[in-house]
Amino acid sequence: MEFRGIFPALTTPYEADGEVSLAGLKGNIRRYNQTGLAGYLVLGSTGESVLLGREESDAVLAAVKEVAAPEKLLIAGTGAESTAETIARTRRAAALGYHAALVKTPYYYKPAYRPETYIRHFRAVADASPIPVLLYSVPVFTGVTLETPEILALAEHTNIVGIKDSSGSVQRIGEVVSGAPAAFQVLTGGAAVLYPALAVGAKGAILALASAFPEKLVELYDLVIQGRHEQAKELQLALVGTSKRIMTENGIAGLKYAMDLRGYHGGVPRLPLLPLNEEKKRQIAALLALNETSAARV
Amino acid sequence: MEFRGIFPALTTPYEADGEVSLAGLKGNIRRYNQTGLAGYLVLGSTGESVLLGREESDAVLAAVKEVAAPEKLLIAGTGAESTAETIARTRRAAALGYHAALVKTPYYYKPAYRPETYIRHFRAVADASPIPVLLYSVPVFTGVTLETPEILALAEHTNIVGIKDSSGSVQRIGEVVSGAPAAFQVLTGGAAVLYPALAVGAKGAILALASAFPEKLVELYDLVIQGRHEQAKELQLALVGTSKRIMTENGIAGLKYAMDLRGYHGGVPRLPLLPLNEEKKRQIAALLALNETSAARV
Amino acid sequence: MEFRGIFPALTTPYEADGEVSLAGLKGNIRRYNQTGLAGYLVLGSTGESVLLGREESDAVLAAVKEVAAPEKLLIAGTGAESTAETIARTRRAAALGYHAALVKTPYYYKPAYRPETYIRHFRAVADASPIPVLLYSVPVFTGVTLETPEILALAEHTNIVGIKDSSGSVQRIGEVVSGAPAAFQVLTGGAAVLYPALAVGAKGAILALASAFPEKLVELYDLVIQGRHEQAKELQLALVGTSKRIMTENGIAGLKYAMDLRGYHGGVPRLPLLPLNEEKKRQIAALLALNETSAARV
Amino acid sequence: MEFRGIFPALTTPYEADGEVSLAGLKGNIRRYNQTGLAGYLVLGSTGESVLLGREESDAVLAAVKEVAAPEKLLIAGTGAESTAETIARTRRAAALGYHAALVKTPYYYKPAYRPETYIRHFRAVADASPIPVLLYSVPVFTGVTLETPEILALAEHTNIVGIKDSSGSVQRIGEVVSGAPAAFQVLTGGAAVLYPALAVGAKGAILALASAFPEKLVELYDLVIQGRHEQAKELQLALVGTSKRIMTENGIAGLKYAMDLRGYHGGVPRLPLLPLNEEKKRQIAALLALNETSAARV
Repeated sequence: MEFRGIFPALTTPYEADGEVSLAGLKGNIRRYNQTGLAGYLVLGSTGESVLLGREESDAVLAAVKEVAAPEKLLIAGTGAESTAETIARTRRAAALGYHAALVKTPYYYKPAYRPETYIRHFRAVADASPIPVLLYSVPVFTGVTLETPEILALAEHTNIVGIKDSSGSVQRIGEVVSGAPAAFQVLTGGAAVLYPALAVGAKGAILALASAFPEKLVELYDLVIQGRHEQAKELQLALVGTSKRIMTENGIAGLKYAMDLRGYHGGVPRLPLLPLNEEKKRQIAALLALNETSAARV
Repeated sequence: MEFRGIFPALTTPYEADGEVSLAGLKGNIRRYNQTGLAGYLVLGSTGESVLLGREESDAVLAAVKEVAAPEKLLIAGTGAESTAETIARTRRAAALGYHAALVKTPYYYKPAYRPETYIRHFRAVADASPIPVLLYSVPVFTGVTLETPEILALAEHTNIVGIKDSSGSVQRIGEVVSGAPAAFQVLTGGAAVLYPALAVGAKGAILALASAFPEKLVELYDLVIQGRHEQAKELQLALVGTSKRIMTENGIAGLKYAMDLRGYHGGVPRLPLLPLNEEKKRQIAALLALNETSAARV
Repeated sequence: MEFRGIFPALTTPYEADGEVSLAGLKGNIRRYNQTGLAGYLVLGSTGESVLLGREESDAVLAAVKEVAAPEKLLIAGTGAESTAETIARTRRAAALGYHAALVKTPYYYKPAYRPETYIRHFRAVADASPIPVLLYSVPVFTGVTLETPEILALAEHTNIVGIKDSSGSVQRIGEVVSGAPAAFQVLTGGAAVLYPALAVGAKGAILALASAFPEKLVELYDLVIQGRHEQAKELQLALVGTSKRIMTENGIAGLKYAMDLRGYHGGVPRLPLLPLNEEKKRQIAALLALNETSAARV
Repeated sequence: MEFRGIFPALTTPYEADGEVSLAGLKGNIRRYNQTGLAGYLVLGSTGESVLLGREESDAVLAAVKEVAAPEKLLIAGTGAESTAETIARTRRAAALGYHAALVKTPYYYKPAYRPETYIRHFRAVADASPIPVLLYSVPVFTGVTLETPEILALAEHTNIVGIKDSSGSVQRIGEVVSGAPAAFQVLTGGAAVLYPALAVGAKGAILALASAFPEKLVELYDLVIQGRHEQAKELQLALVGTSKRIMTENGIAGLKYAMDLRGYHGGVPRLPLLPLNEEKKRQIAALLALNETSAARV
């Protein structure tokens, strides 16, 4: 199974009453189906997975599966704090037809967790999973970083096929690419470092920003694959500012608003995440207008 | 409602097959009922609440309620990432007869969370809660620290009656005690700073270590209340090492093993938390043996 | 040599042209001589030691020695990154008549420093020093924390007589007091935790805030020594806010301005430290006015 | 003035008695003169500048100037905590014939430093400097990170011509390259991210590792400039492990030992930096032997 290309970390839209909008979600997927996206990550951090109940999560998984174009790879976020619950979620995703599971590190009891804890957790999940497992290291949310030695140890497991590294460290990507078996695939979680990550051997990316700008991120990926490095550099530099002003400064609320402006079902996030204020909305609208009038930019 | 005295953060025992042992839990409570403990915290961090399912959590709440002596104050840990889910859990705890809810900060989307996020979250929970709310700041697990300005803003809410501060900062306890309304109660989460916390105005403590050593921690509390400062200091200094070697170095697994040695239902934690190895067990056994042969020590 | 009581971390006043004002410094010392301060720390962090040249440092040491009352203990800050330079500075301080040296941890190459590095550094300095050495752990400036095991190892050295711990951790004070030889003296660097630190066995304190409010901090120390715990608590709680608003929020510039208001030679710090703006000055002036009209407060 | 290419962060060799070995230093420079290195950084972090006295620093600057080939750009590290001292050092370097000054952020009083503090500091230095100034952000040693807004504000100053960013963040390099005037030059301090940094617009690098492996790093730079991306990637991946095992794991002591093995004057660092133990030496020797027998590797 190859994770080449760009996967958006899907958002979860809500109805006016706060319930998950499966219609909105399916609408987004139908539009994404028309693009060069390689597949979809469902129930990732961007999907507000930690704010959804179990029934909601299952409904989201089923809805995406229902409308996704058949050539798209489907990845389900299934990581929970408990090893047993992670396995249960992974099995449900497999039963629903998902091709792979993205499993974030446990993180709550981090003072008690050692490298051995992560290694045993991921091995237990991979042993029990009917589908391939991708590790997920996202220190900005979890406070936990999977370091190179643990990653390389886990890369030996036949059912652990890669990692999404959202630490932003291009150096670690190089370390893993140079140290892991050739079949182990590294995906970056950072749109602002997509080109440099690919340059040192990442195979693709799972990106929140791709939920609003799928074409631009696919374009950047294609430029790199085609060896058009100068154009890749220019597009990457244009995307750096877009990424910072939308995702770094405004998070999921910012991303969803950018999606609204681009005709997707964005909406507001669930509490405790707060919606954007009017000033922030104006800034994002101005940024997108600027990008559209600039041929060389997003 | 006064939270004076010592509350153990209860552990959750498991049967050999990994299921929650309600019998073991009730057995522990019946022993604690004989002590001077002021009440019980159920489903806190020490209770592995993030490793339990919803049905398990409800069963644990009901079991403790069933056997707790009537004079013991019952506090339920009800914090979830989502505001709505936190409210739902708080209402269930109230319906089960709990006297107060301990609500930890949301923490997953910490790059997007501002002081305003926490203030709005806690106010929404307190507005909706049928029972008084205690804030819970536990940066060692969440990576989020409630700072004094947010705490003081929230202390104005009539249904927010106090805070459990597990940051270990005695300075912040002083800041909150000196800045908040007199009715706002500060509880420390640190057994190693119990006496200094009480000395600057904390009203009590919610302590993991009290699950293994309830008498010693009640004794220390009583010494301070009685103004026997020299004895309080000596007992606190003895407890510092016990706390460090059991909780800081070994976490829940260490605490549960100490409980086993003292005749409680301890057992092993759930995965991904790992059980103690034999060397660690020997160290804790030696520590407890040493304490028992030392009249002035725990 | 006993370090009981309160030592101000002296500030360094400057003339209008930016040169060190030895006259201003001596003027401050003459006033401090009239108080119950136990002695003086010269060339600490508060003294802007890292902004002074070698000749300036020597002149400051000589000036304080010249006018200090004979009963005051004189401590010189002599820590440098290099072991050899630290020894050289310590010997100069001894030659100038200083009673003890306060030696901060090396910190620049912290990724390469191990506990062993600190242990060997401090032992080398203590071996070579003609005067007793106090360890100095100040993570807020250095990013380095001396942990309990290193401190206890160093406490065995006959010429290492104590530590100034400015980490703010009252827990660590308890750990060191309970684990070190009885002759090893712990001094806190936190005015906001003076009472709790003394309560668990600290012998005294070296405090920036004592440069502006020597009488109040000596009063708090005396209350604790006399066992007047209730009054100690009240005064400590009053000082918590003063400490936070002056030192935590405004640093050396805030402290010096408070000194100006209280009739000492304060002035502005050296660049890159910036002077207070007018708004900050007004806040500090208002705080001091409030304290003076409040009998129970600073 | 253009900072294209690779600059080694020079080490400082010592004689057996601990004195600076100017002869050893000159010997190293004479060999470096034969390579494609673009110039030299003298008195950087790698040069143990914080462990040298003023006279030693001046002697080192003079020695390198004396023997450097005339086409090599000479950069002096002149940052000190004090603004005035930084200016004084910068002027001395200029007087000695240095072409540019590398000025690290002040960092000791970091709780009091604001973005404005850094901006005013660097502007004051640049105003007073007879030679162009490069900013230097090295959070691993200082605990201070120059963030993009400050860098972009400073990039407007006509005498601030670039930055050495040793944070390891390739994203920030992209942000600065895309946001700063075209003349502002970004240099990376990370050998493990040299290729990705160049890919997003860095102009060159100042690298500790180049003191031991100048040819390999120049080769990597040249591959990127020539657009030979596939070979650049392969060489970068080989260098990632070398960088980690020598610099990340062993710091200056490791670098100097690698220099010894390659025939340079390496030696041991000054205390408190400790020399390598025999096991570490064997590991580095084995790594270099492996590299030499591997055509595709360093």
